Parts: sequence; structure tokens; C-alpha cells
Amino acid sequence: MDRRRIAIVGGTGPQGRGLAYRFATAGHDVTLGSRDAGRAASAAADLGTLAGTGLRGDSNPGAAAVADVVVLAIPFDGHDELVASLADELAGKVVVSCVNPLGFDKHGPFGLDLGGESAAERAAALVPDAQVVGSFHHLSAVSLIDPDADLSTQDVLVVGDDAEAKTVVMDLAIAVTGRPGVDAGSLRLARQLEPLTAVLISINKKYRTHSGVAIAGLGH
Amino acid sequence: MDRRRIAIVGGTGPQGRGLAYRFATAGHDVTLGSRDAGRAASAAADLGTLAGTGLRGDSNPGAAAVADVVVLAIPFDGHDELVASLADELAGKVVVSCVNPLGFDKHGPFGLDLGGESAAERAAALVPDAQVVGSFHHLSAVSLIDPDADLSTQDVLVVGDDAEAKTVVMDLAIAVTGRPGVDAGSLRLARQLEPLTAVLISINKKYRTHSGVAIAGLGH
Repeated sequence: MDRRRIAIVGGTGPQGRGLAYRFATAGHDVTLGSRDAGRAASAAADLGTLAGTGLRGDSNPGAAAVADVVVLAIPFDGHDELVASLADELAGKVVVSCVNPLGFDKHGPFGLDLGGESAAERAAALVPDAQVVGSFHHLSAVSLIDPDADLSTQDVLVVGDDAEAKTVVMDLAIAVTGRPGVDAGSLRLARQLEPLTAVLISINKKYRTHSGVAIAGLGH
Repeated sequence: MDRRRIAIVGGTGPQGRGLAYRFATAGHDVTLGSRDAGRAASAAADLGTLAGTGLRGDSNPGAAAVADVVVLAIPFDGHDELVASLADELAGKVVVSCVNPLGFDKHGPFGLDLGGESAAERAAALVPDAQVVGSFHHLSAVSLIDPDADLSTQDVLVVGDDAEAKTVVMDLAIAVTGRPGVDAGSLRLARQLEPLTAVLISINKKYRTHSGVAIAGLGH
């Protein structure tokens, strides 16, 4: 395994903490980023106890600055402003967007209409020098942080326009599911991956589970 | 199993023929519909030989008129006109949209931007008296028509706003995968299911396979 220096922007949220836990457990060097560096440090200490290995906490820009791979585990609300503010730190790096632009109303969850775009494409437009990849949208935060949850039947779908960056992220998926992520095509297909999470949340509610996605026909 | 009278509008296309084959093999009463009734009859005869059971062929309205469940297995191009023309035959029935509004260009397949809507919702708006359900989007036509293809690891996702119609379609899925379809939420989530097919086609091209979707965490 290539050991990566990974920053999780928005690393104190459920999705960020869950991914950080899995990456750290697999031996990657993980820094949680947060708007509040103190909160990040505190969350990192808690996760370190759970994972049995050290994680660091820092401000979002501080975490991003020292990483090779930066994971955006942030809400869609405020997404563009936050990404733009990190343009210097993200430039030249592999940036993984696992942002799910969802809305909720009395009929349940739904994908927000971004005018035919995706959060991942927005990030790519805001930081043209970064290699933006869309991935890790469909893993339940509850399962990610649960040491007993077996994610080995799930697939991590990876979309992007930079083949090398995509390979880095497909390899990172091994830390989560035990197998490489699935190359699911070009970055614009993040338009399909991001709101699919609304379907999973709907299924979770109906079946009282933490569902995930698997791709049949890959022979694994 | 409740034996259903099923019409497949657009039943001579690959997706329609594949679904018809599986439904007929499982013992349902299937009529293929086509713009050209003669072509439908000919395709029905071929499928009947493959399935070892009789299917009928008819015009699209003729097929829909005698069915309890009408499957729309039609291209998105011309969708609205065709559905509107069948409004009388579809009224009061369970209508299953498996329409995938996709585009293709040099970067591969992508979901068409329907202004935040889905083909299934359009059908529901065009025929308000029908119980429209979105389902069967993600099954490879090649696998459906292949008697040796095992689809038992795949899930049929079902979305709709009419609980009874949704149950009918979840039961129909047993004919294809051997297990009931998954209740994936309200009809508007067809916005997510329809273009997900672009992701699967992308995966098929990359991995030279016929991929499908499975939902992890349902304990089956």
C-alpha cells in the first residue's frame, strides 16, 4: 500500500470522521481539518484512541497544506466559498469530493438541482489546478465509524477526468472496503453519484438499515 | 406468485425483449407492444421459442389495452408524445417506467438534464390516472435475454408514490432476480435512478462486463 498523507476538510462531521477512522486504521497519515482547529484536535484525539494510531487536527487550510490527498467531506451549504478559500492549498493536489448536495422535505430526501452540475465539478471549476475526483459518497457514516461494520460487500465508485488521480483514490478505497474502488467514468458522472445518496437514505428509512452500493458483474 | 397480464410498450427493443423474456419465463402473461404490430408478433414468436411459453404481439395501444401492468421500455426520444397517445389505455393501470434519458458524446454516456425532472414523473404528469412506478432501469439487456445469466445478486430498485402499485412492481422483480424489488422511495427519486444507468454503461466499457446494481445492508 502507498501510504498517503490525507487531509479531511470538514473532518469533524460524521462522514469525515468515519473516513478518517478507516484511513488511519489502514495506516495512512491523516489530519482532520475544521473551521475550528481546537475542535479538530479534539476529534483527532478521540479518533486516535478508537483507531489505535495517531491522527492530527488542524484548521482546514492547515490540514490541506500538508497533505497529498485532500478529502472534501463538507456540507453543500457553503461549499463554493469554502473550496474557493482553500484554492492555494488544494492546487496541484488530488482532491476527493464526497459532497452530497441533498435536500429534505416531508416526502423525504432528494438531490438538489444544481443546474445540471455536480459539487465535484464545481470544486474543479473553482480550483482548476487540482485533480478533482468524486468518490466515497455512499458509505454510511454510522458504518464507517463502527469497527465491527463489515464494508467488504460494498463498492466505492470513483469518477474523475485525471487517470492518475483516479488511481490514487481507487487505491485509497482499499482502506475502507478491502478492495480497490471502481472506475465509474468521467467527473461529470458525479451528477449521478452525489444524489444517489438520497435513494440510499430512503432505503435506510424504509428498511431500518445502513445501506450501501455494490456493483454486480465485476467478478469480485 | 400473482400472475400478471403485462404489456411491454416498446417491447421489440433490447430492454423490452429482455424483460418480456424474464416475465414470460416466470409465468406471467406477456404481450409485446410495438408501433408495428407485425414486428411485435414476430418478436413475440421468437421470444416464445426461447422462453418455452407463449407471448403475444400487438400494437402499443392494443398491448396496453388488455394489460394490468404496462411497462414503458421506450427511448426517451419521443417519450412524451408516445405516452400521451396511450393515455386512454394507461389510465387506471400500474405503469412501470424503465426509461433512461441518456446522452452520449466523446466523453461517454451522461444523464440528460430534464430540468430537474425524470421521465417517470413526466409520464405521471401526462397520465394522472395511472399509477406510475419507476423501476427496472439497471438490468443489462444482454443479461436479461441470456438464459444462463444469473441476476440473483442484483437488486431492482422501485420508486413511486402509490404504495399498492409499488408492491405490484416489487413482486414482479422476483421474476428477474428471484427476490422482491427494493422500495427505494418516492417517484421523484427516479431522477436519480434513470441517469445512474450512465454510470453502469461507463463501468461496462471500462471493465468489459454487464454490470448491475446491488444494495448492501439489506441482509439478503
